[in-house]
Amino acid sequence: MKKIVLDCLGGDNGLPAMVAGAVDALKRNPELQLVLVGDQSQIQPMVAEFGDRVEIIDTKVNIAMDEHPTTAIRTKTDSSLVLGLEQLKKRDDCGAFVSAGSTGAVLTGGFMKIGRIAGVSRPALCPFMPTLIDGQEFMLLDAGANMDCTAVQLVQFAMMANEYKKATGMENPRVGLLNVGTEETKGNEVVKQAHGLLVKLRETGLINFIGNVEPYQAFKGEVDIVVADGFWGNVFLKTSEGMAKFVFKSLKSIIKSSFSAKIGALFLGRKLKKFKAEKMDKTNATIFLGLKKSVVKMHGNADARKVTSALEYAMTVANLDLQQRIEQMLAQIEPLLGGNA
Amino acid sequence: MKKIVLDCLGGDNGLPAMVAGAVDALKRNPELQLVLVGDQSQIQPMVAEFGDRVEIIDTKVNIAMDEHPTTAIRTKTDSSLVLGLEQLKKRDDCGAFVSAGSTGAVLTGGFMKIGRIAGVSRPALCPFMPTLIDGQEFMLLDAGANMDCTAVQLVQFAMMANEYKKATGMENPRVGLLNVGTEETKGNEVVKQAHGLLVKLRETGLINFIGNVEPYQAFKGEVDIVVADGFWGNVFLKTSEGMAKFVFKSLKSIIKSSFSAKIGALFLGRKLKKFKAEKMDKTNATIFLGLKKSVVKMHGNADARKVTSALEYAMTVANLDLQQRIEQMLAQIEPLLGGNA
Repeated sequence: MKKIVLDCLGGDNGLPAMVAGAVDALKRNPELQLVLVGDQSQIQPMVAEFGDRVEIIDTKVNIAMDEHPTTAIRTKTDSSLVLGLEQLKKRDDCGAFVSAGSTGAVLTGGFMKIGRIAGVSRPALCPFMPTLIDGQEFMLLDAGANMDCTAVQLVQFAMMANEYKKATGMENPRVGLLNVGTEETKGNEVVKQAHGLLVKLRETGLINFIGNVEPYQAFKGEVDIVVADGFWGNVFLKTSEGMAKFVFKSLKSIIKSSFSAKIGALFLGRKLKKFKAEKMDKTNATIFLGLKKSVVKMHGNADARKVTSALEYAMTVANLDLQQRIEQMLAQIEPLLGGNA
Repeated sequence: MKKIVLDCLGGDNGLPAMVAGAVDALKRNPELQLVLVGDQSQIQPMVAEFGDRVEIIDTKVNIAMDEHPTTAIRTKTDSSLVLGLEQLKKRDDCGAFVSAGSTGAVLTGGFMKIGRIAGVSRPALCPFMPTLIDGQEFMLLDAGANMDCTAVQLVQFAMMANEYKKATGMENPRVGLLNVGTEETKGNEVVKQAHGLLVKLRETGLINFIGNVEPYQAFKGEVDIVVADGFWGNVFLKTSEGMAKFVFKSLKSIIKSSFSAKIGALFLGRKLKKFKAEKMDKTNATIFLGLKKSVVKMHGNADARKVTSALEYAMTVANLDLQQRIEQMLAQIEPLLGGNA
């Protein structure tokens, strides 16, 4: 079991939340070993009980949410983000890096410090999204790392996610292309081109491409991987979150508005909370797929509970042989896509 | 008050639902006059009581949901859709056309039979979406009529919607550009270019451009008009609908799953229904903006109640001086956008 590196300074809730989440993860997972990057004087007393299961890399330097990513990664070489990524890069005993820092900085840092798998044009952000089927979710990529993708880049996203799913034990993942209709004539030029290439790859048996999917098909659980350009992938992600928030806020004000509604909510309360916790927090931990080692981004506002679950997610990705799988697959499909890059 | 032309054959629920909705609209609005296009022998007995407030154009030919739009419009010249659009086109006493037929056929028909306002590059679909603020909604355009828009086309959408809102009495509509972040550096190339052009127009005082907006800002009610390319506009629309459906389906199964949850739902019931009816049915009737006369598209599954509300919406747009306003505005901004089309 490889160690997980945790950036203890990034994120809105700062070191106390990060380390509290780490402590809980260490308690729940006896095999977990961590490299914590942050202020040693604060971290040490909180993790003393775990002995040599925890290493600390000492720094007080953080990259703030509003800093320019490339500049910050280049100049703040002693920041928790850069130091953490360097640990992941150089150490064979480390398998994943986790941070709640700014998305731009984590992506840029991962790109610059860890580097891409050979053949990968653009690494992609891959959050999990909920479906109506309990225990089933779908992976969305790219969810916002790359704007103006080409059709070949969309196909690479599909194949990377396909390898990820297979590496985690799913035999024949259903891959769909996010679109505004299911017919193959639907969509903009890039999506139509990507559709054509994915049909070609399906014919070789390399991918179980189920065609275009509309948003509700994904939420219904008809697909395991949803492929999109980072622009409309992010529109999809943020609209999902925005509409869910809209509905829950509206429910809240309905409940506040009358006595009988309040009574109703009392009876529903725990079930509703469980639904929100189980289904709506799915997108917390997101792997940045296509890098040589696993970089996991948490929501900026991750609290201790979310840090724990992100670390547990990182444990599952730290030991996957993603790099080799993706490299081989992309080399295999390259001649089939010929001239379309 | 101009007459409204209603396609009584388009849509999943067929003539009975269309005419039932028309009857209700006639009862509720004594000033309403209709031109109903469909099977006269069926329609006549249902509307006899309204005398000369109702005209009937007799046809039994419908354009089905799966027909190729351009071919259907060209060849089915005696269809309810084509006959209805021709009524709107040639008659000064008709102000709007309403149909629940296939989106493609209604758009193509509107484009071919009614024609664009001078200067309009692409007409846009403009549904209304709900916000947390009661009685306030925002207009989304383009919601799916146009793929691969240019920045200038996005700016035209903004200006057309701006004129629409002003024509309906709103003084200084807040216009936002759908994006994945609020900073001006965010987005893909088309969106960044459109942002630059809209900032330029804001400086002339022609538009109250509030900048980039993320989905939740729109649902919160921070904006009156949300501008997007038809591809990601439709992704936004369908993801909103899909996520809302996901949450309500999930609530339903939570409620079914336990006795106490059922009790809770009983107390909440009517309030929840009211919320769904008032907020979640917003997108039913959608104007196709940029045509010489008002074409209104209903959901394909519109029932009688939705037909009534679409006809009432059509009454408000039938008498607007949209054509002149939009034509003048686009002519005015053209030199400012110079060379970017």
